[in-house]
Amino acid sequence: MPAGKLQLPIALDAMGGDNAPACVLEGAALALVRHPGVRFLLFGNRPMLESVLKTLPALRAASEIVHTDSVIAGDDKPSIAVRRGRDSSMWLSIQSVKDGKACAIVSGGNTGALMAMSKIIMRTLPGISRPAIAALFPTLRGECVMLDMGANVESDASDLYNFSIMGDAFARAVLGLSKPKIGLLNVGSEELKGREEIKGAAALLKASPVNLNYYGFIEGNDIAMGTVDVVVTDGFTGNVALKTAEGTARLIRTYLRDAFSSSPIAKAGGLMASGAMRAVKDKLDDRKRNGAMFLGLNGITVKSHGGADAYSFCNAISVAIELVAHHINERITQELKISQSPPLLTIVREND
Amino acid sequence: MPAGKLQLPIALDAMGGDNAPACVLEGAALALVRHPGVRFLLFGNRPMLESVLKTLPALRAASEIVHTDSVIAGDDKPSIAVRRGRDSSMWLSIQSVKDGKACAIVSGGNTGALMAMSKIIMRTLPGISRPAIAALFPTLRGECVMLDMGANVESDASDLYNFSIMGDAFARAVLGLSKPKIGLLNVGSEELKGREEIKGAAALLKASPVNLNYYGFIEGNDIAMGTVDVVVTDGFTGNVALKTAEGTARLIRTYLRDAFSSSPIAKAGGLMASGAMRAVKDKLDDRKRNGAMFLGLNGITVKSHGGADAYSFCNAISVAIELVAHHINERITQELKISQSPPLLTIVREND
Repeated sequence: MPAGKLQLPIALDAMGGDNAPACVLEGAALALVRHPGVRFLLFGNRPMLESVLKTLPALRAASEIVHTDSVIAGDDKPSIAVRRGRDSSMWLSIQSVKDGKACAIVSGGNTGALMAMSKIIMRTLPGISRPAIAALFPTLRGECVMLDMGANVESDASDLYNFSIMGDAFARAVLGLSKPKIGLLNVGSEELKGREEIKGAAALLKASPVNLNYYGFIEGNDIAMGTVDVVVTDGFTGNVALKTAEGTARLIRTYLRDAFSSSPIAKAGGLMASGAMRAVKDKLDDRKRNGAMFLGLNGITVKSHGGADAYSFCNAISVAIELVAHHINERITQELKISQSPPLLTIVREND
Repeated sequence: MPAGKLQLPIALDAMGGDNAPACVLEGAALALVRHPGVRFLLFGNRPMLESVLKTLPALRAASEIVHTDSVIAGDDKPSIAVRRGRDSSMWLSIQSVKDGKACAIVSGGNTGALMAMSKIIMRTLPGISRPAIAALFPTLRGECVMLDMGANVESDASDLYNFSIMGDAFARAVLGLSKPKIGLLNVGSEELKGREEIKGAAALLKASPVNLNYYGFIEGNDIAMGTVDVVVTDGFTGNVALKTAEGTARLIRTYLRDAFSSSPIAKAGGLMASGAMRAVKDKLDDRKRNGAMFLGLNGITVKSHGGADAYSFCNAISVAIELVAHHINERITQELKISQSPPLLTIVREND
């Protein structure tokens, strides 16, 4: 979409990620082509940024640099990063959103630090105690959004209910669905199965005054089948599921590579089918799905993979633009307000 | 291995599973070829079994039929199956192990009912409060065993510690490893990450007087990478991980099928590479890995997939034979006894 409508620039933590600042800036340059009119606030070491920007004149013209003195390392502990990193590109880029100078911030840096800083600076939306990380998964029907992917290791029934509302808004904004189907990840589809917090979340969803399209319980295999559009789970399970899927895909890629080099005939066949195989590779390419949103914050923070290349980082910027353009937080706030109307409150209290 | 050394027959719940009794009996006939000398106690409807056995004379000669009047349905609630199913093929086949008439029982029936009945009839091993379901996963290095795959939705630190001991014995018996590497499934490899029960289990494993090869924390992608031989997790996470991996594999198979029929050239390439593709399919074939053991029971119960065909059911019988031949429960009992020596008991008490 054209980003000319965005009233504010996107803030980029230009120092975050393995290949920063080069890939961050090259990604921004690609995003500028994809979303004409978008502007950037670039946080990082000015001489380093200026040096890369020499080769990217269009981006230079669409950007403003804010010099920052320090960088949060990938292995810094979030608690320490928060205390000592107040002059970092990460902290200051988040701060710019809080200060109304940018509409969203994208970073490829340390996930834990980015979440901790975002919580401190932006605060959570009213009614949200735990933000969640939302990410996209490939499915037989296209894509689904899954949350939480690791912001919290434990979630109670009301957290899972809130994740459902946030995931619903995310799927409408990023996947363009009008009525996303929401499923709770469980170990069986029968009503009596699973952990107490999941059964509690199911009760809250069924009684919800918000017009959500709640499907019911789903199992792990339903994720890739595309049974639902929004997969709701706690951050521990979501993280394990995402990484197990990645590991499985890598295992199969290795099997295929070995198979296609196992004999001259197989090699020739592989060569003939290489176009088709590229299409498969493309569908599984997680660079396309880069850009995990921290949902539930009073501001938009998008996390890029630390190892993102320019194309991948550009996709994370696109996610941020979609979320701003679709007023994701206004949608979430509105649904949370409806949820907190008296009938649901009663239910929540009964479960407490 | 030849099963002539088994002193007792294997009990088969011949009525359990979607294709029972035909696939159960055909699977047993295959097992008889693979393990010469094995004998069977077949529990089920005598006329039905006799009818199938007419075409399987070698199996008929190696088997004894015990007529049973009822069958546990796939959707029976475990609690009801346990109360009303005492004359079922499932109950009576488990009972035969308890009574010393069979050395193990294999069933393709209702998992929840099979676990509930096995717990009531066989009881758990001394020191085990929660049995676990162990299953094999394909990895880049071969196979790993993962437990718990869904017997429990929650596990505490000492459950996870006990799963480690049971998984170690299983990997030595079924995978033939002398010193299986054990990993705790978590959301990060750093010591401070994850849920409390996992950190507690790590402390127990580090302090264990049993000579275990504890690797540390692993993440979801490590499962398929083969980073460890034994993946220890709670039944909720294990079940989600297994099914997510199955869903991902199915998604990629669908992508590949579509790709290879996308153009005449791709089709021809696919045809030329079909031998190589079959090898990949074979590696991913979960029929090869059929046979999940219920570990921690005072007896051997092996669960076959409900939809197993004869080949698949035969593999579940092989698992049972390996476990009997390698004295799995004696190994577990011995390690648990060492674990309960004073030093570890102190640690467990401190954590209580």
